[in-house]
Amino acid sequence: MKLSDLGEDALVVRLTRGLPRNASLLVGPGDDCAVVGRRSDAVWTLLKTDCVIEGVHFISETDFARVGWKALARNVSDIAAMGGTPQHALITVAMPPDLPVAKVDALYKGLRRCARKFGVAIVGGETARSPGPVFISVALTGQVERARCVLRSGGKPGDVLFVTGRLGGSLAGKHLDFTPRLIEARWLTEHFRLHAMMDLSDGLGADLPRMARASGCGFELGELPVTQGCSREAALGDGEDFELLFAVAPRQAARLESAWPFRKLPLTRVGVLTANTKPLPVHGFDHFA
Amino acid sequence: MKLSDLGEDALVVRLTRGLPRNASLLVGPGDDCAVVGRRSDAVWTLLKTDCVIEGVHFISETDFARVGWKALARNVSDIAAMGGTPQHALITVAMPPDLPVAKVDALYKGLRRCARKFGVAIVGGETARSPGPVFISVALTGQVERARCVLRSGGKPGDVLFVTGRLGGSLAGKHLDFTPRLIEARWLTEHFRLHAMMDLSDGLGADLPRMARASGCGFELGELPVTQGCSREAALGDGEDFELLFAVAPRQAARLESAWPFRKLPLTRVGVLTANTKPLPVHGFDHFA
Repeated sequence: MKLSDLGEDALVVRLTRGLPRNASLLVGPGDDCAVVGRRSDAVWTLLKTDCVIEGVHFISETDFARVGWKALARNVSDIAAMGGTPQHALITVAMPPDLPVAKVDALYKGLRRCARKFGVAIVGGETARSPGPVFISVALTGQVERARCVLRSGGKPGDVLFVTGRLGGSLAGKHLDFTPRLIEARWLTEHFRLHAMMDLSDGLGADLPRMARASGCGFELGELPVTQGCSREAALGDGEDFELLFAVAPRQAARLESAWPFRKLPLTRVGVLTANTKPLPVHGFDHFA
Repeated sequence: MKLSDLGEDALVVRLTRGLPRNASLLVGPGDDCAVVGRRSDAVWTLLKTDCVIEGVHFISETDFARVGWKALARNVSDIAAMGGTPQHALITVAMPPDLPVAKVDALYKGLRRCARKFGVAIVGGETARSPGPVFISVALTGQVERARCVLRSGGKPGDVLFVTGRLGGSLAGKHLDFTPRLIEARWLTEHFRLHAMMDLSDGLGADLPRMARASGCGFELGELPVTQGCSREAALGDGEDFELLFAVAPRQAARLESAWPFRKLPLTRVGVLTANTKPLPVHGFDHFA
């Protein structure tokens, strides 16, 4: 059997079964970040890794400064989706020996710009030769106050589902220049008790079923905040929106909508979590499909 | 200009200049690991990332269980070289869609085996499609008691240089099956005040000049513990020995040799640090040469 026969979600289930754990692991594989610390600690540590690959996440002609931004911003988005703040980044870059040095300089320019914007220290890394595409892997640590840590798994039937921003059409440029919703997530966890949250990396059509499954719920979807010129299918399946998807108790929903202080960023009710958990089709991006 | 014209050490200097820092960064790029925490903390956090790539660090025909072991063990070796103990690992794997699932299973078998052996929890990761070679990146956290943290930069003229094990010939198999010197490094930092330590990943000929430069010293080399059947050149330049190189005050050297409790692992004086810092030729492995 090949990876393409198995699919991404089944592969992840297979690989994360029976992994070695230790006493300080509070939340393991399956959420946006791992959470480590002691249960009684006031502040927990978040750990995340993610990668971007030439020919998959960007094309060779892309400005490498934008690639650098994207490589780090993807991880910042995951830290934000847990309610946390990012801290320390490690960068691994594999490149062919004939790559112009100017491209690597540009890559680091984008990494540094993203790091400064979101208060991240770049503390180390590794360079290696690639016999093929350019490969950039980023590992990022973060912190989150215990009371503000939001998992995917806390959603309840009846919860209202919100997304920030507009969905779809990321390939037109947003996938390289998106702003991780760090400020917005910190505001949300300061003022509301969110039941569940995640960032939308593979498209709402793939990511919402993951949140619902983790929460032991089903879901119903209503109207979506679609990017101008995009179809509903694009909003569900394009992926790389890097917007927040979160669930709150219905009695909090109206207060949240009226308190939302980010005038330029839409906040949209997209549906509800339900008690009906019959499996729903997945429409998002599968890496191995 | 291309990467191959610049070379690995000059590239790293170029990329690590002016990186964003923060108040909790105690030791940034340039050592085996980054060190974060407050200066007054009793225990500091270590952060490390490293990668292995098909066609560079292993060939396609290699048993992927050995590749998995190697991918994590390289990082454990770096945590050991700071005097610390490893804690939490994040795994990033990029693979072509036609890769047999059995190979990924084997890879994770090796990762799990190494993790259990050295007390590491695998807390998360990322899978992605590769349009080329298999690429595995591991990020590892660790802890070290402040008093036992050993940098590359603390060597002094007159210090005696030791290496563990035998050097050279790693391609005959050791590069896949090596044992990170974690127990040995913990014993060393418990009983001796080491001035400087690092692990030998690119060969003594490349790594010793790095330690000497970081310490503001020169060095003189004597006889080397050469792997049976290898030349002195191989011991200096093959790389991937993953043995410890460390520097201690001369008055501690004899006591250390007689106290060394690891009967099966040679401990060899290979030279001294000197006050003469004139540049010395580098004979180790350069990724972009």
